[in-house]
Amino acid sequence: MISIVRVNTRNGRAIKAQASEEELHWGGRMLISKFLTREVPPTSDPLGRYNKLIIAPGFLGDTTIATAGKFSIGAKSPLTSGVKESNVGGEAGRKISRLGIKAIVLEDIPETPKARILMISTNGAKLIEAPELKHTAVSETFQIMRERFGSSVGIISIGPAGEMMMASAGIAVTDAHDVQVRYAARGGLGAVMGSKGIKTIVIDDTGAKPSRPHDAKLLQEANREFVQMLVSDPKIENRRKYGTSAIIMVANSLGILPTRNFSAGQFEKAERISGEQVADVITERKGEGRYGMPCTRGCVIRCSNVFPDPSGKKAVASIQYENIALLGSNCDIGELDDIAELNNLCNEVGLDAIETGATLGVAMEASVIPFGDAEGAKDLIRQIGQGTHLGRILGQGVVVTGKALGIRRIPAIKGQAIPGYDPRTLKGNGVTYVTSPMGADHTAGNAFETVKTTDPLGIESQVENSRRLQIRAAIIDTMGLCLFSRPPFVQRPELFSLFLKGRYGWDLSYDKISQMGIDVLKTEREFNKRAGVSEEFHQMPEFMCEEPLPPKNAVFDIPFEEMQRVWEVKLPPNVF
Amino acid sequence: MISIVRVNTRNGRAIKAQASEEELHWGGRMLISKFLTREVPPTSDPLGRYNKLIIAPGFLGDTTIATAGKFSIGAKSPLTSGVKESNVGGEAGRKISRLGIKAIVLEDIPETPKARILMISTNGAKLIEAPELKHTAVSETFQIMRERFGSSVGIISIGPAGEMMMASAGIAVTDAHDVQVRYAARGGLGAVMGSKGIKTIVIDDTGAKPSRPHDAKLLQEANREFVQMLVSDPKIENRRKYGTSAIIMVANSLGILPTRNFSAGQFEKAERISGEQVADVITERKGEGRYGMPCTRGCVIRCSNVFPDPSGKKAVASIQYENIALLGSNCDIGELDDIAELNNLCNEVGLDAIETGATLGVAMEASVIPFGDAEGAKDLIRQIGQGTHLGRILGQGVVVTGKALGIRRIPAIKGQAIPGYDPRTLKGNGVTYVTSPMGADHTAGNAFETVKTTDPLGIESQVENSRRLQIRAAIIDTMGLCLFSRPPFVQRPELFSLFLKGRYGWDLSYDKISQMGIDVLKTEREFNKRAGVSEEFHQMPEFMCEEPLPPKNAVFDIPFEEMQRVWEVKLPPNVF
Repeated sequence: MISIVRVNTRNGRAIKAQASEEELHWGGRMLISKFLTREVPPTSDPLGRYNKLIIAPGFLGDTTIATAGKFSIGAKSPLTSGVKESNVGGEAGRKISRLGIKAIVLEDIPETPKARILMISTNGAKLIEAPELKHTAVSETFQIMRERFGSSVGIISIGPAGEMMMASAGIAVTDAHDVQVRYAARGGLGAVMGSKGIKTIVIDDTGAKPSRPHDAKLLQEANREFVQMLVSDPKIENRRKYGTSAIIMVANSLGILPTRNFSAGQFEKAERISGEQVADVITERKGEGRYGMPCTRGCVIRCSNVFPDPSGKKAVASIQYENIALLGSNCDIGELDDIAELNNLCNEVGLDAIETGATLGVAMEASVIPFGDAEGAKDLIRQIGQGTHLGRILGQGVVVTGKALGIRRIPAIKGQAIPGYDPRTLKGNGVTYVTSPMGADHTAGNAFETVKTTDPLGIESQVENSRRLQIRAAIIDTMGLCLFSRPPFVQRPELFSLFLKGRYGWDLSYDKISQMGIDVLKTEREFNKRAGVSEEFHQMPEFMCEEPLPPKNAVFDIPFEEMQRVWEVKLPPNVF
Repeated sequence: MISIVRVNTRNGRAIKAQASEEELHWGGRMLISKFLTREVPPTSDPLGRYNKLIIAPGFLGDTTIATAGKFSIGAKSPLTSGVKESNVGGEAGRKISRLGIKAIVLEDIPETPKARILMISTNGAKLIEAPELKHTAVSETFQIMRERFGSSVGIISIGPAGEMMMASAGIAVTDAHDVQVRYAARGGLGAVMGSKGIKTIVIDDTGAKPSRPHDAKLLQEANREFVQMLVSDPKIENRRKYGTSAIIMVANSLGILPTRNFSAGQFEKAERISGEQVADVITERKGEGRYGMPCTRGCVIRCSNVFPDPSGKKAVASIQYENIALLGSNCDIGELDDIAELNNLCNEVGLDAIETGATLGVAMEASVIPFGDAEGAKDLIRQIGQGTHLGRILGQGVVVTGKALGIRRIPAIKGQAIPGYDPRTLKGNGVTYVTSPMGADHTAGNAFETVKTTDPLGIESQVENSRRLQIRAAIIDTMGLCLFSRPPFVQRPELFSLFLKGRYGWDLSYDKISQMGIDVLKTEREFNKRAGVSEEFHQMPEFMCEEPLPPKNAVFDIPFEEMQRVWEVKLPPNVF
């Protein structure tokens, strides 16, 4: 049986019901868009009774297809007030799928704040009071759960930031060995989980009898072909060695690297925080340092790493491009050890490192601490975790911080911080930030992928490009695959059809699958429209349209009307 | 010549241009709605370059018609993100009118924060650098201006809150003798003025040659009739003696008095903070205490007062219903001396006392200080003025405060605090709060006026009632009259026609004037729609639909769809 598990967080009742025929055809990001539209009043309070936190593995979540361990978490966002889906690797997603669960839906809120464990197993779902988990850091929570429930469970957790319902709180997961800490970081979903009084979700798939694929052989063959194509991709070595931090030097040369609160696009200390430097440090320091690690079991791309401190102990796992850009160059912090510590503090407190890095940049512009003050920045993140008054400002993210501190240069769209690609010099991302139902989120359609084919400074074809990237992301996020799994689909889009045929027996042409992506965006957009956060109301921050960004001295100049075309663009059949 | 004065606050240029034929037919709140719609991009940053602060006397601003000294200030609101008009008495409005100025429009923002004086006189407009005014309290600013520019100028000013661009900052004016401090309080307009680098506006009408009314005799006669009707109103004695604070005991008996962050509608210490008590204290303490004072020259209603401290010195002028309700019962503070001091602190720091009182209630619910802690509350307002981190949270108003402190019971609609009438027990105000383009603002259509004719707890006819009250308010706010001037218009709506005929020679039937009110609301609503803050997206706070309010134990239960009818309601010819 494929089921939907619903947990009422007020009265504690859990219901496991068979998925309807329609629901069987929803997964991951698509399922979240459908459930939100069907069940959550668009104008409801994101932290109130009527919002729902939805956890949904993608279509391929219970297969061994490479990278398929990613799963989606979504809700109406306390940061953007619109739909938010955030996906993440780790172990929990596959275990949810193996239990035959299509979605876990957390409903209502408790009458008073609580810290509880939600236990999901073959016995169903149950809430366990756990006041001892109040305000525990994320790694400590993982450790306590591990001690209590053993080494084979999957764990999903929030930190103190989520408990305090801070709008920049994310949701953390672990890998099989508690090495990697991965985040469904964006959109403040950790605050929604906190509002429901759930500190941690433990997934125990012991005894699970996963439903068998429709055609195991077909699935296996398609996966073999897929893996073959992935590992023969020329970028794979680069990805394994440098991970996403390889982007630093490219971003720097393109002038898109956020620097000192988005006041420059190049950072004079870029080399010191580059992917090459990351790899060198890992190699030199030995100890627990590693690169080429998977974030989810069976991934062949393995872009994750363990970044060691000078003594060789794990400082953070992983260190990645976005976090280096936002916590590093954007704060004028040019030492990887500092960035790793800042990143780890975000992980422990339970914060989106992108939102937090952008927030620190604004706090620095407001002279709360000077630019480049790494120790001051660490103190500020600790203050967020402690809930000091300043911490409570910062924990609400970059928009509240800018307003409270009287700063006008707020790098955010739809309430959410702009990630590590300045839209003035990567204009395709500007189109994505403004038009995506997700707000400023590079994973919703990242034009960095296409800098070789679409001039990042040009106006022409950015809208088409963003449209294509947005559909692509929606498909990938619905499958439960990683965005880095794209290259094989460029050559062989039919792989999607083979995967779904092998897993479910569906006969879906690639065109139908492409329509799925379009449908996801349409559903999300409709939710946002009814929530009052339609993209027509949320433009590029004014300073980005007026302040030329050195050294390219570009402003964001794609007309708003031009961006609105994104919904009408006709594309060639293969968006990959 | 009737002119529009435009001041570019970036380059300092001021332009005085003749009002167009169309502009001549706009005034007060109507003018603000038209200018905003014509000139301010609806999605622009309220504190950015493209917002404009507009100051506009009403149609009757330069006449001697009783109560006509009120004038309107408006902009895109940093609190609601929609249109905001706030009107106020004092001396400045009439002086602007006497100078032949229909509107003062502050455009753009300076490149760096500034404190400047905007001088308006027969010589035009000029900006004067005044760094010495940085962070001065409101009364101190008035005093410095008085010393510098003499006793006959009108003064408009912001406090430190406006300079810090806090979303709950208001704009203050004085009367002719610097006794009353009146506020265009709501919607955060003080932050907009602060964003423009204008600390104070001085209006010097020396040498002004006001344009003569079309028919002075007709105007005089109509005013005589109007005054006669006003002074023979049975309520007038009550208004003069108790002012708006007379409402306390009525509100208490109806169960609509906000108490302890809107958790009750009756306050056990209501008598101690009642209008009767206000009058008794004034009478007993003698000294500077007064009741029956006008807030603007020539008002015959005279609902203002000077509330004395125990030594007989002015503690605050005036003490009024809304401020007593929000700073008093809503904070469980039951001593008038405390409330007067809190009110005066708001005046000095430059804050909307309604927004601030609601914010303190939420801070108390969050245990920042206990309910009833008057000294703690005073300290918090001082902290807002000092811009401490906690002060910066509170200064952003009740929504940001609730979010930052993790409180879900946030009494606000469209980002703005609910004033002194709980919508659960005065449901007509609920309709106004939700549907008015102004957000939660009782002056936009106050059903308290109609509690005798429309059951405040009933569902029936609340929508019609709110519609009627909203149109009425829009007309009055466009004329530049006080809402308390209503009674004569009930009997003689044609008085409006006589006033406009006498002043301008216009032949407008009452029906046409009523259409003006409808047109104002339509224009404002259109602006909000394009700004993304259409009333369909901003509902009653969820707790008000769920938590019965003792002692009446009512919830707000007018269906959202029912409220949407407000735009289609057909009304009888006289809305007064």
